[in-house]
Amino acid sequence: MSTAELNEDVKIVLKELENRVITDVFFVACGGSLAVMYANKYYLDRHSKALRSSCYNADEFVYRNPAALSENALVVLCSQTGTTSETVKAAKFAKSKGAVTVGMTVDKHSALAKEVDYVLGYEASYTTGIPIDAVNSNYSLMYQLDAGLVKIFDGVDRLPETISSLANLQAVIDKAHLYYGEMSTRFASELKDEKVVYTMASGLSYGSAYSYAICVLMEMQWIHSQAIHAGEFFHGPFEVLDETVPFILLKGMDETRPMEERAHEFLKKYGGKLMVLDANDLDFSGIHEEMKAYVTPLVLFEVLWKFSYKLAELREHPMLEARRYMKKFAY
Amino acid sequence: MSTAELNEDVKIVLKELENRVITDVFFVACGGSLAVMYANKYYLDRHSKALRSSCYNADEFVYRNPAALSENALVVLCSQTGTTSETVKAAKFAKSKGAVTVGMTVDKHSALAKEVDYVLGYEASYTTGIPIDAVNSNYSLMYQLDAGLVKIFDGVDRLPETISSLANLQAVIDKAHLYYGEMSTRFASELKDEKVVYTMASGLSYGSAYSYAICVLMEMQWIHSQAIHAGEFFHGPFEVLDETVPFILLKGMDETRPMEERAHEFLKKYGGKLMVLDANDLDFSGIHEEMKAYVTPLVLFEVLWKFSYKLAELREHPMLEARRYMKKFAY
Repeated sequence: MSTAELNEDVKIVLKELENRVITDVFFVACGGSLAVMYANKYYLDRHSKALRSSCYNADEFVYRNPAALSENALVVLCSQTGTTSETVKAAKFAKSKGAVTVGMTVDKHSALAKEVDYVLGYEASYTTGIPIDAVNSNYSLMYQLDAGLVKIFDGVDRLPETISSLANLQAVIDKAHLYYGEMSTRFASELKDEKVVYTMASGLSYGSAYSYAICVLMEMQWIHSQAIHAGEFFHGPFEVLDETVPFILLKGMDETRPMEERAHEFLKKYGGKLMVLDANDLDFSGIHEEMKAYVTPLVLFEVLWKFSYKLAELREHPMLEARRYMKKFAY
Repeated sequence: MSTAELNEDVKIVLKELENRVITDVFFVACGGSLAVMYANKYYLDRHSKALRSSCYNADEFVYRNPAALSENALVVLCSQTGTTSETVKAAKFAKSKGAVTVGMTVDKHSALAKEVDYVLGYEASYTTGIPIDAVNSNYSLMYQLDAGLVKIFDGVDRLPETISSLANLQAVIDKAHLYYGEMSTRFASELKDEKVVYTMASGLSYGSAYSYAICVLMEMQWIHSQAIHAGEFFHGPFEVLDETVPFILLKGMDETRPMEERAHEFLKKYGGKLMVLDANDLDFSGIHEEMKAYVTPLVLFEVLWKFSYKLAELREHPMLEARRYMKKFAY
């Protein structure tokens, strides 16, 4: 796909930023959208000497009011519907401090879109079920933005390989679904009566483990959970493990993989119910060597998402309808 | 206590840093020691325009290898015994990058102490049971270091009120134990047969909620848990709540308290088993107005720690002896 081009919305933001002094990037969102941000801090941590970044829950960001939030800050916010009230409030707050605000949302006319300086419109199939091309996903737009930031502020241009990789991402996801189809059917039936299921990962994949624990297992299936960091596992959490406690382990391709491998060895030895998604088993054709690690969190989350529907069916607990509180009451 | 003075070990570090250009502070540790670091990022986020900070699990830090890790970085590490291998490795790694390294440990002759440029020797009673004065705790030394950093690099001197407050901290903790004695006895008996117990907090107290979930509930009592961020609670986790699911909620005095109050309202309405530790109920005599919020995480953790012994006794699951894996095998 040599014709792949920089996303139009991202292009506009980068054009503006060329003329600004930016020293700080704040990644601000709630829940599943916050989870996406963790991979972007990882990207900037690894690739930028010029920029410092932090991830915050939107309310935490506003109340904490970091001293570094100024006209030299870029604040990137995300809300799928664009209606998350804490995130809309955070956008307004960031603007009042003189920061440049970028809002990622599926609805370009949403409250978040109206509040920010620049909108990145992305696509998502989670609530509609209508298939998308992953080049238009939130991860894709974020990595294009990250690579653009590093080009402007560090003078290193990774945009070409970033863009061409993201153009080929959907095919990787489609093949991952096929590869894990059988295993996820088997594991759904093994897991259907469980009351507690942990997820685990490190580095780039930690956000996917977090999102899956809080937005799918807890929210959509009412299963107790925690996303355990694979390095932290050995400093307390591992003591709950015996052969009856189920774990979903994500093994990525980033620099922190040895932590996930260490956790895997331990789980094999002392655990029993274990689903492992290992990016090394997948076909990353069309993805640049350096980008394989970065696309992994989305690929693994997509596999888990499909797995969830099998689990939900066996549990007779529908993914999108079974809610006690969410959007049912004021809170 | 007008005679209160800056800790001698901290004084030596600050003296050295006066002549360095420092732009970044990395807080690096594992488990319960990492939990302490979160409050220190909060401190620098709020008070420093000159310094940027991040908290990392020690292995994550080494593998991630942030681009900003250079001779302009201060790396603060903590391990109670000074033997945590990931943290010792991280100290060595940070030094190889030219960073200034500071190691907090109880044992000034430990592996961590040998690896770092400067040692902060603190006291802890968790494993020995021998009472300490909280002015010598890890939190106390860290806040003295934080205030010193802000004095050097931002030119704002909060050291006098920081030091005088910390000198009076033990009395606050002692009174908190008395205040919560009866409630914690009652709640221990309510909780003794539970398989899942969540903790929740935001801002400064989040680290205490995290430490309590992973090091006490999971590690020492084999109870399933997660430290839920009070803002994130509403974006997934709250769907697991019904009147049978126990929560321990920490309410601090920092800027993020409205999030903990919002979560509290929700728990009162839809939950059932709820232990709330509210710093507003405590006697903070001798603590400077601005420091009350900062000492709260240690005060609340100390109360929880004493509560744990009541719980452990009723569960017949000894706090310090019952381990399946920790320090029993190589892993």
